[in-house]
Amino acid sequence: MRTSIIAVGTELLFGQTVNTNASYLSENLNLMGFDVMYHFVVGDNPGRLKKKLVQAFEDTDMVLLTGGLGPTQDDLTKEMVAEYMGVGLYRDEKVVSDLKSFFERHGRHMADNNLKQAYLPEGCTPLYNASGTAPGFALEKDGKIAVCFPGPPRELKWLFENGGRQYLEQFMQKKMCYRVIRTIGIGESDLETLLLPLIDTQTDPTIATYAKEGECTVRVASQRDTAEEAAAAVDEMTARIEELAGRYIYSLNDEELVDTVVRLLKEKHLTISAAESCTGGKFAAAITDVAGASEVIRSSFVTYSNEAKISVLGVPEETISTYGVVSPETAMAMAEGLSRRAGADVSVSVTGYAGPDADEGHSAGEAYIGYVYRDMKGYVSVNTSRNMRKWNRNYIMLRMLRTVYLLITDKMQEEQAAKKQ
Amino acid sequence: MRTSIIAVGTELLFGQTVNTNASYLSENLNLMGFDVMYHFVVGDNPGRLKKKLVQAFEDTDMVLLTGGLGPTQDDLTKEMVAEYMGVGLYRDEKVVSDLKSFFERHGRHMADNNLKQAYLPEGCTPLYNASGTAPGFALEKDGKIAVCFPGPPRELKWLFENGGRQYLEQFMQKKMCYRVIRTIGIGESDLETLLLPLIDTQTDPTIATYAKEGECTVRVASQRDTAEEAAAAVDEMTARIEELAGRYIYSLNDEELVDTVVRLLKEKHLTISAAESCTGGKFAAAITDVAGASEVIRSSFVTYSNEAKISVLGVPEETISTYGVVSPETAMAMAEGLSRRAGADVSVSVTGYAGPDADEGHSAGEAYIGYVYRDMKGYVSVNTSRNMRKWNRNYIMLRMLRTVYLLITDKMQEEQAAKKQ
Repeated sequence: MRTSIIAVGTELLFGQTVNTNASYLSENLNLMGFDVMYHFVVGDNPGRLKKKLVQAFEDTDMVLLTGGLGPTQDDLTKEMVAEYMGVGLYRDEKVVSDLKSFFERHGRHMADNNLKQAYLPEGCTPLYNASGTAPGFALEKDGKIAVCFPGPPRELKWLFENGGRQYLEQFMQKKMCYRVIRTIGIGESDLETLLLPLIDTQTDPTIATYAKEGECTVRVASQRDTAEEAAAAVDEMTARIEELAGRYIYSLNDEELVDTVVRLLKEKHLTISAAESCTGGKFAAAITDVAGASEVIRSSFVTYSNEAKISVLGVPEETISTYGVVSPETAMAMAEGLSRRAGADVSVSVTGYAGPDADEGHSAGEAYIGYVYRDMKGYVSVNTSRNMRKWNRNYIMLRMLRTVYLLITDKMQEEQAAKKQ
Repeated sequence: MRTSIIAVGTELLFGQTVNTNASYLSENLNLMGFDVMYHFVVGDNPGRLKKKLVQAFEDTDMVLLTGGLGPTQDDLTKEMVAEYMGVGLYRDEKVVSDLKSFFERHGRHMADNNLKQAYLPEGCTPLYNASGTAPGFALEKDGKIAVCFPGPPRELKWLFENGGRQYLEQFMQKKMCYRVIRTIGIGESDLETLLLPLIDTQTDPTIATYAKEGECTVRVASQRDTAEEAAAAVDEMTARIEELAGRYIYSLNDEELVDTVVRLLKEKHLTISAAESCTGGKFAAAITDVAGASEVIRSSFVTYSNEAKISVLGVPEETISTYGVVSPETAMAMAEGLSRRAGADVSVSVTGYAGPDADEGHSAGEAYIGYVYRDMKGYVSVNTSRNMRKWNRNYIMLRMLRTVYLLITDKMQEEQAAKKQ
């Protein structure tokens, strides 16, 4: 069923509030097999809201609205929906008594304007709201369905889960399944080119690629008569994507790279430590952002100056003077020194130019990641060719995570062999 | 001028991406004095995009579009805007050469589909994009203005600040001046209460408080006939705000706390080092995110386990066993050990529970920040009373920055005296 979402609230048009309600509803509607065609945002203005209602119902059968159900004078969503559908309002006595006990429970006097919330469109299905004062409702007339939810995200979610979803289930025709596949190490247009044979020939499942900071995701989505068929179609397509782009895939279920790495380290009972120069602590901060990181990391080091690389990690002064501080040799000496020093199972280091400045003969975005893991020692070169300090630092940190990922999944040799070809 | 925003991208209708672009643009447009009337979101579908363009221009004079400018087949924003305005496309040779050098710099082959990005509507004002591959543009015809930006938020922001804003300024009727004042150490409702005498009596400049992660900002904005009048009104109001809330203000020009701290460290020729437990590298990562951080930080340490606190920093085992690892005593021993170890001018440490877990008798969000600076040794207690790991880690990191800020501006004693009252 074709669906639109209208969010009502001037604060959205001021940019004070981000419309997370629309993404929350969209995700849930898609998973239930509804086609979300449009989002609209309109201020607390009756004429403009009515106009958007007309436009939304022009080519969608169902409209979900959020906001504008409260007690104040500028809350007009209910009135406009009733007017558009051509019905009046009635006083819902259950809402009246809910309101009275709400204010009693909170030991507060109920201002008269609160009773405005007890008036609902005639013939509607009330969605009683135990998480706040404003009830929602669903109204179906002449093949048009309007479902109204309160604007505060917490109340919207509560009411969607407690009444809204159940109301919508009667209209579900097809079942939806989708999967978000995560990749790193390939750009969006290269990834699309790689998957083009699949993208061009498919109508269901659909395949779409998205660029995220430093990585790319692929979304595979199918709508079928049963959930099982949709899941099978997604699985089958996933296998074909893995054949074409498997080398770059690190998660088949939308897991962040750092979560994947920490999970794998835990599963394999491995500890990790880092010696960071240009990333300056971002790698350790990312690892320790994951709950339970204390199982995998004990200590980590930021060695920003040459002096710190020498005194903290024991990098030989000659290595730096001979090869330069940003060099494969220094990166490897950092990882080896770190391995001796901290004794973690995986030692990873990085030295590079985040930008804006770089020494002569080098450029911002050039970095070397050193590693020691079991009998493997080596380095990975990175060159972003960008002079964007924050972006570079994040990207280099992601490449450190990818290096660890390749090491502990025994894919590093494969990667290096592929590079040499 | 009445304005609409259309965000193009099926990922928004799937609920995978939140429409932060619309709030970013709305905030900036409002500050420039434009009236934002509607937001629309539409998928990568030419017919439906065209339909929304028609609806948007029905009652607004200007439409800003985001997304759908990339190299892939489903990127159709440019084509639909040109068609709606009745103009053709031309090949912009500057974009062609920008694209070529972008791919050369990245050492990557340019897939042919990238050239699609070099075609722009005839008669447009190109907005060249140095932060990505897809250029934006502005097109004015028959009293209608369309301004198109790429969809990735980082690129949108870059292009808005580097060309977009300047293009829009010609349509501003009044001149705008605004200032964002940053505070830390006070909650939003307390700050609003403090400023209420100013807020209640003012129509211009307007004063608005906003809560940000762990801090609060005050925006003072004035629209007058001349830029000078607007600036004078903002300055005058800023002085009155400083009288009421000066203790909490650390920046009068929207400088991030970390930028303020690094700038002050540089100005005072001071070095800093950290010993981080619960923040796990976030403090060092924040400091080194600022360009030129190498002047102020040489080394920093993540000592996540008790063992690392003992072996890396020399914290006495008895301190941990007697007072507990999350205690003022351990925090101070960490800072003292760090001071001996790294010899920076400012040594700051932290030990705490980020969550979700905490030892018996403690709670998530409890942390102690230790410091050594000149003849001052001490600690600051933090208790967020929240069990939100990422939020806690960020807040505790900000409190470390505030501790350093108070130390190096000689305000720590004043702060501690105020606390004792």
